[in-house]
Amino acid sequence: MQNFVFYNPTKLIFGKGTIRRIGPEIARFGVKKVLLLAGGGSIKQNGVYQQVIESLKENKIQWVEHWGVRPNPILTHANEGIEIVRQNNLEGILAVGGGSVIDEAKSIAAGVYLDNLWDAFERRVKIEKALPVFTVLTISATCSEMDPYAVLTNEQEKKKWNIEGTALFPKVSIIDPSVQFTLPWEQTVYGAVDALSHIMEYYFQGKGEEPTLSLDESLMLSIFRSVDKLKENPLDYPSRATLAWSAVLALNGFSGAGLYGGDWACHTIEHGISALHPEVAHGAGLAVVFPAWIKYIHPLNESQFLRWANNIFGKSNVESAVQALKDKYRSWGAPVSLRELSISKDEIPKIIELILQANTIRNIGNIKNLDFNDLYEILNIAY
Amino acid sequence: MQNFVFYNPTKLIFGKGTIRRIGPEIARFGVKKVLLLAGGGSIKQNGVYQQVIESLKENKIQWVEHWGVRPNPILTHANEGIEIVRQNNLEGILAVGGGSVIDEAKSIAAGVYLDNLWDAFERRVKIEKALPVFTVLTISATCSEMDPYAVLTNEQEKKKWNIEGTALFPKVSIIDPSVQFTLPWEQTVYGAVDALSHIMEYYFQGKGEEPTLSLDESLMLSIFRSVDKLKENPLDYPSRATLAWSAVLALNGFSGAGLYGGDWACHTIEHGISALHPEVAHGAGLAVVFPAWIKYIHPLNESQFLRWANNIFGKSNVESAVQALKDKYRSWGAPVSLRELSISKDEIPKIIELILQANTIRNIGNIKNLDFNDLYEILNIAY
Repeated sequence: MQNFVFYNPTKLIFGKGTIRRIGPEIARFGVKKVLLLAGGGSIKQNGVYQQVIESLKENKIQWVEHWGVRPNPILTHANEGIEIVRQNNLEGILAVGGGSVIDEAKSIAAGVYLDNLWDAFERRVKIEKALPVFTVLTISATCSEMDPYAVLTNEQEKKKWNIEGTALFPKVSIIDPSVQFTLPWEQTVYGAVDALSHIMEYYFQGKGEEPTLSLDESLMLSIFRSVDKLKENPLDYPSRATLAWSAVLALNGFSGAGLYGGDWACHTIEHGISALHPEVAHGAGLAVVFPAWIKYIHPLNESQFLRWANNIFGKSNVESAVQALKDKYRSWGAPVSLRELSISKDEIPKIIELILQANTIRNIGNIKNLDFNDLYEILNIAY
Repeated sequence: MQNFVFYNPTKLIFGKGTIRRIGPEIARFGVKKVLLLAGGGSIKQNGVYQQVIESLKENKIQWVEHWGVRPNPILTHANEGIEIVRQNNLEGILAVGGGSVIDEAKSIAAGVYLDNLWDAFERRVKIEKALPVFTVLTISATCSEMDPYAVLTNEQEKKKWNIEGTALFPKVSIIDPSVQFTLPWEQTVYGAVDALSHIMEYYFQGKGEEPTLSLDESLMLSIFRSVDKLKENPLDYPSRATLAWSAVLALNGFSGAGLYGGDWACHTIEHGISALHPEVAHGAGLAVVFPAWIKYIHPLNESQFLRWANNIFGKSNVESAVQALKDKYRSWGAPVSLRELSISKDEIPKIIELILQANTIRNIGNIKNLDFNDLYEILNIAY
C-alpha cells in the first residue's frame, strides 16, 4: 500500500426528507447572504427549489439567484457569478443541482479571491481560500459534493480543465436520494458511469492493495446491481440510495486510499472530447472511452485487469470482460462508440490536440503517460 | 438505508516514515506547547518516541510528558493530566500510543474545560469544546485515532463508560504501520478482534443496506486474511497496513453508514467484564462475548446472521459460523470463554450488575435491549 493522506472535512447529510436542514447548517457558519446557483430549472419541477427556499427563509438567510449553469459549466457564466457575489457582498455559495452546478459554485467561491479565475486552472496561482460552499445534490455522479475538485470549460480556448484545493471541500452537502426518482433515465445512467469510472481510475493502478481493492470491487458491483434494479423500477429507494452513496465513496478519498493517485487518462481523454463537443455528457463520453482504454492498456498491468475481469464479470480474460462492460452499458442505453456520439473519424486529430494541451500541467495517465500515437490508437478503438 | 450523517474532519496521514510529520502538523494549528501523553514505555523501545521528540524540537514545539496511561485508562490518571495542562498552560494534547492513550488524551482535552470530567461520562454535561488532540498511533484497534469517542474507567465506581462529541475528533493522526512490526502477538490479535467487533456491531443490525453491508464483508475478510498472514510473518508490511487501515474504516463512520447506529451490546457487556477485571484486554473480552451473543441473539435478525455465515465463512447456518469464528480466534491464540479469562461462574451476577449500571444512559443493545435474564444466558454461554 502506498502512503496516503485521508482528509475530508465535508459534513454529509444523507437521506429522505433532509433538504430542509440546509438553512440551519448555513446559519451555523454565520453566513447570512448566499448566492443560490442552479441550472436550467428542473429543481422547480421536482420541488427541491421550494424546500430550499423555505429553509433559507425560516433561518433568515438572504439569497441572490444565478440560473443557467450548463452541463459542462463554462468560465463566462462562473465569472458572472463572481461579479454578482462581489456586487452583493455575498458570504457563501449554495449550489442546488448536480456536479456541474457544484463545480461552478466552487469555481466562483475561489474566484472571488482571485484577479483571474482561469489562472488557477492554468496553475499560475494556487487556491488558498474560498467562500464557504454548501450543496443540495440532485444527481449522483461526480462526488463534487464531497471532494476538493472542480472542472470548468474555458469555451474560448476549448479547454476543459480542473482545479483542486482543500478550500474547495463543501462545508455541508445534503443528499436526498428520493429527489432523483424523477431524473431522466440517461442522467441516472451517465451518473452511474461517472461513478464507476472514478473507481476504475484508481483500481486499475492496483498491485494487490487490500482492503481498498476489495472495497472498490464491492462498490462497482453495488453500482451495477442498483442501476439494473432502477431500470426495472426508477422509484426503488434502496437502489437510489445505494447508487447515491456509492457515487460519494467513489471519489471522496476511500476508493483510492493507498492506490498511487489513480490513472485519470480516461477523464483527460473525455475532457478533450467534450471540450470539442460540449453537448456530450461526461458520463456518455466515459462510457465510450473506458472500454477502449482498457483494451489498449491492460497488458501494462495485466494481473490487476485480470482480477477485475474475474471478480466483477466472472471472466478469465480481459477482452471478454471489456465486452461484458460494453454490453452492460449498452443494456442501460449508454453509447459505447464515438460513432454513437455522432463524432466523425476526421475529428480524432483535433480531439487529440485538445487532450495534449492538458499535458502542460499533468501526465495523460499514470500507468502510461499517453502520447499522440497511444491516443490515436485508443480513439480508433473507441470509434 | 437509514438516514445518516457522515462527518469526520480528522486528517489521517498513513504510511511508512510518516511520524516525522507530526511537528509541522501541530505547528500549523498555532500550537506551541503540548502535553505528550504515553503509556508504559514501549515507544522508547520501538523508536517512536525519539522520532516524535525530534519532530517537535525541529518545529520549536515545547512539551510536558505524562507517562503511565494504563490499558483500560483510568479517571485518576486523566485528572492528573488535566492538572498538568492547567499548571503549564498547554495548548494541545499529543497522544503517542494505542487506543487507551488516545482515549485518555481526548478525556483530558475535554476535561480542561469542565469542573468535573466524570460529569460528561454520566451525561450531566455536554462536551462543547476541547483542546486540539494530535495522535501518533502504535496499535491498530479502537479507531480512536479517527473517531469522536473516548472510553475511561472510573476505578472507584467500577464504571467503564464513554464520552462522545465532535470536539473529540483528533485534528491530525499519524499511522505508520511499520512501527507495529514489534508488537507482542496478542496485542496484534486483540486489536484485530476489536476492529472486527466494531464492524459486527453495525453489520448485524443490517436489513439489506448496500453498499455498506458488502463493504463491511470486504473489511472483515481483509482483517481475517491479514492476521492469518501476520501469524506467519509479523514483518509483512502489506498485512500490517491492511489491518491498520481496516481498523480505521471499522469505526470512522464508513462501516455503519445507513445501519441504524449499531447494536453495541457486546461492547457494553465487555465493559462490564473489564470494569471488574481491569487486567482483561478489551479485545480479549470481545473475543469471548461476541460468539456467545451471536448464538443467543441471531433468531431476532436471522436473515442478516445467515448472510454473514454464508459470505464470511461459507456456512449455511449460524451455529456453524459461530464455531468457525471461535476456531479462528482460537487459532490466533485469543480466549473464547470466560473460563479462559480466569473468571469464575460466581462472578457473573456482579458483572451483570456492572453492565446494567450503563442502562441509566443507554440501552444494552439495540436488536434487543438486554435485561438481567438475557445477560445471564449470554454470559453462561460465554462461560
